[in-house]
Amino acid sequence: MEQATKFELTQEFHDRFQQALNERDAAFISAILEEVNPADITSLLYEFSSEESKFVLDILPLPTRAQIVNDLDTDTRKKILEIYSAAELTEVVNQLDSDDVADILNELPIQVSEEIIGNLDQDLKTQVIDLLRYDEHVAGGLMAKELIRVRANWTVVECIDEIRKQAENVAKFYTAYVVDEKDKLLGHVALQKLILSDSKTLVKDICEDDITPVETYMEEREVAEIMKKYDLESVPVVNVQGQLVGRITIDDVVDVISDQAEEERQLMSGITEDVEEDDTLLKNVRARLPWLLIGIFGGMLSARFMGFFEHELTKIAAIAFFVPLIQATGGNVGIQSSGLVVQSLANPGYLDEGIWKRLMKMFYVAILNALLLSVIVLAATYVFFDNHRLSFIVSFALFCVVMFSSFVGTLTPIFISRLGFNPALASGPFITTASDLLGLTIYFMTVHVLL
Amino acid sequence: MEQATKFELTQEFHDRFQQALNERDAAFISAILEEVNPADITSLLYEFSSEESKFVLDILPLPTRAQIVNDLDTDTRKKILEIYSAAELTEVVNQLDSDDVADILNELPIQVSEEIIGNLDQDLKTQVIDLLRYDEHVAGGLMAKELIRVRANWTVVECIDEIRKQAENVAKFYTAYVVDEKDKLLGHVALQKLILSDSKTLVKDICEDDITPVETYMEEREVAEIMKKYDLESVPVVNVQGQLVGRITIDDVVDVISDQAEEERQLMSGITEDVEEDDTLLKNVRARLPWLLIGIFGGMLSARFMGFFEHELTKIAAIAFFVPLIQATGGNVGIQSSGLVVQSLANPGYLDEGIWKRLMKMFYVAILNALLLSVIVLAATYVFFDNHRLSFIVSFALFCVVMFSSFVGTLTPIFISRLGFNPALASGPFITTASDLLGLTIYFMTVHVLL
Repeated sequence: MEQATKFELTQEFHDRFQQALNERDAAFISAILEEVNPADITSLLYEFSSEESKFVLDILPLPTRAQIVNDLDTDTRKKILEIYSAAELTEVVNQLDSDDVADILNELPIQVSEEIIGNLDQDLKTQVIDLLRYDEHVAGGLMAKELIRVRANWTVVECIDEIRKQAENVAKFYTAYVVDEKDKLLGHVALQKLILSDSKTLVKDICEDDITPVETYMEEREVAEIMKKYDLESVPVVNVQGQLVGRITIDDVVDVISDQAEEERQLMSGITEDVEEDDTLLKNVRARLPWLLIGIFGGMLSARFMGFFEHELTKIAAIAFFVPLIQATGGNVGIQSSGLVVQSLANPGYLDEGIWKRLMKMFYVAILNALLLSVIVLAATYVFFDNHRLSFIVSFALFCVVMFSSFVGTLTPIFISRLGFNPALASGPFITTASDLLGLTIYFMTVHVLL
Repeated sequence: MEQATKFELTQEFHDRFQQALNERDAAFISAILEEVNPADITSLLYEFSSEESKFVLDILPLPTRAQIVNDLDTDTRKKILEIYSAAELTEVVNQLDSDDVADILNELPIQVSEEIIGNLDQDLKTQVIDLLRYDEHVAGGLMAKELIRVRANWTVVECIDEIRKQAENVAKFYTAYVVDEKDKLLGHVALQKLILSDSKTLVKDICEDDITPVETYMEEREVAEIMKKYDLESVPVVNVQGQLVGRITIDDVVDVISDQAEEERQLMSGITEDVEEDDTLLKNVRARLPWLLIGIFGGMLSARFMGFFEHELTKIAAIAFFVPLIQATGGNVGIQSSGLVVQSLANPGYLDEGIWKRLMKMFYVAILNALLLSVIVLAATYVFFDNHRLSFIVSFALFCVVMFSSFVGTLTPIFISRLGFNPALASGPFITTASDLLGLTIYFMTVHVLL
């Protein structure tokens, strides 16, 4: 029994492996990988080229090969599968569950995926064709067709026979779904209940109806929320007629939650494409450029705007000294406010009618922060810069900037979320650019009026 | 059977409920909540005061009450439990699993939790005392003691008897853990295997050893990573002697993953305390202030620094015009670079020895972006501002700023992660403040040398 320590990929192992790859030493690779968990081989493959990865995969037994292909991240898999023939691919995907096959087929060119579908095992083929109808990001695209389906009028012994028949196809199951003669979902029987019941008991007598099916068109985000909220390890999927068509297991949802976190991180970092460090140079540049250009555009606007105050600036250069202070604080306040709102939007119980209460709270927090910061800045500028009027102006402008940025930072994510976009978009460079322009305008208006 | 649509808390329901609460109308509340899922009642309680929540809880049947107390988020629970007596609390926690009891006790004042422990049911008491020894954020603090433990020399029928005995205590189980006479973990038998085996079969003949136990002191982050990577729905926990002491289920890990995402979002937003919008005003202010103050400090430094160039600024005010442009771009580049590295650090297979390769890649991406942006800015300033030398200076400084910010943005998270902190810290205001100062320095140095 192996201990669950993380598989450590040492430099030595890596080099030895690379050498074996260069020499195409199949015997050595096969021997060295025999004891390694497939999930660790998957991680290992990220270090090598697509051709090398295929060489390694072809050495491995078919079930392991299929599991690894399934575990690979989408980008890496795409690259590796490009060099596979349709026949080789068919052999691999025939090993997988229907939902995983559908995901992989969705990534392939149409003609390749058509050819593969044509050659799938009959049962799998029917299931996969059914799954391909659904968008990837709804319950129908997330579900697997493999499940244990029993009739309400069966006995426990008939159920166990059915489980015996299905055991080969269904890898993990904890519950049998109970349906009527029209396949309408009635409830479920937990495996432990089956074990503990007399073999002549009727399913309908031990069937529990405290089950929460989701419909095929429900958004994956919502499915994840429901499974998390009600602590479910699997959830049945029904069509509009209430017929049982599949089930979603918690491991699929763990992936949804992780992907969401990654998407948010990217939005908050101002990266516009799903990109990783190992992607091509061009893709990396392209993913970063849009927000940089918007930033540049904002910067040019700022420059034009400050141009109107050239006269004031030439007279008192010190006005310019505090532009970074004003802008940085505006940006920070904006990011913090939007960050908190994005977090609230992600949590349950965020009421529509709560907006006014929230705005009032935000308002008090902003006033307190604004007061504290402007007093500190007033004192500091008073000591370090010998211009009392400018001290007052900077401090007053800072107060206004904190107030306005709080306001914009709070409302923007709510607005973006209402428009149907991910509110995390508002926690990134978007809010920074907006706060920069806002801060500059407030500051120079104050300078213009008060100086 | 209820459909899993999200429970919609309408304004009407909310008002009617509030009114019933004001009138302390227990009969109405009891009736209206009868059909509602406990998880939805939990969400509902977030809308009311602690006293009101306790009133609602006391109306509900004890098992439901216990489940809701368990589901509440830590902050809300703390507030509500403060108004409970130790005797009332004992009654509630006696309903829960050992790991949940330990979590709740950890949140209570020592004397209250001691009193509760003294009055727990005997079995639960022993288990909870054992669990309280572990830090909350390691496997020992995450595990529950409730599990099905069978001996290798038992028959299937003896196993099923044991399951019958335990079924009351263990809510969800999918597998029975097999131990030797010294409680050392040998492997596991899946429930489906038990169902399908002859009743006289010996456990050791159907026991599978492809199990990955984790040790009590393993970090929760690592446990989550392992369960995600190997697609496990539960994982046994062993002590240093290899004895089975508990198990962690996937729903606990879902919470760990969500908490991590929330922590990252807060770090990236520059919020220093775990705070929510509904927390007290003071807590909200305090959570935001540190980064704002650091920003202010950076701004004051910038002001002092620009002071050295007062002479240049008075001569050519246009120098100041481009400070926002330089700083915004530096900040954006820094955030993007650090965001990508943080993402890589969160993924498996991030090799120590890959740093040089990554830096080279970063270098090429940065050069391309820097070239593009400076050409654009050169052209734009040339058209809009009639000062060719200044155009050249701004464009050249921008090139340098993009290069340096990429470099700092890439290295800072790696450095912070090496120091043992969460690298997401480097994706927030930290990197913005650093980039601001860096950009300003580069720009004014360029101005000083080239103008």
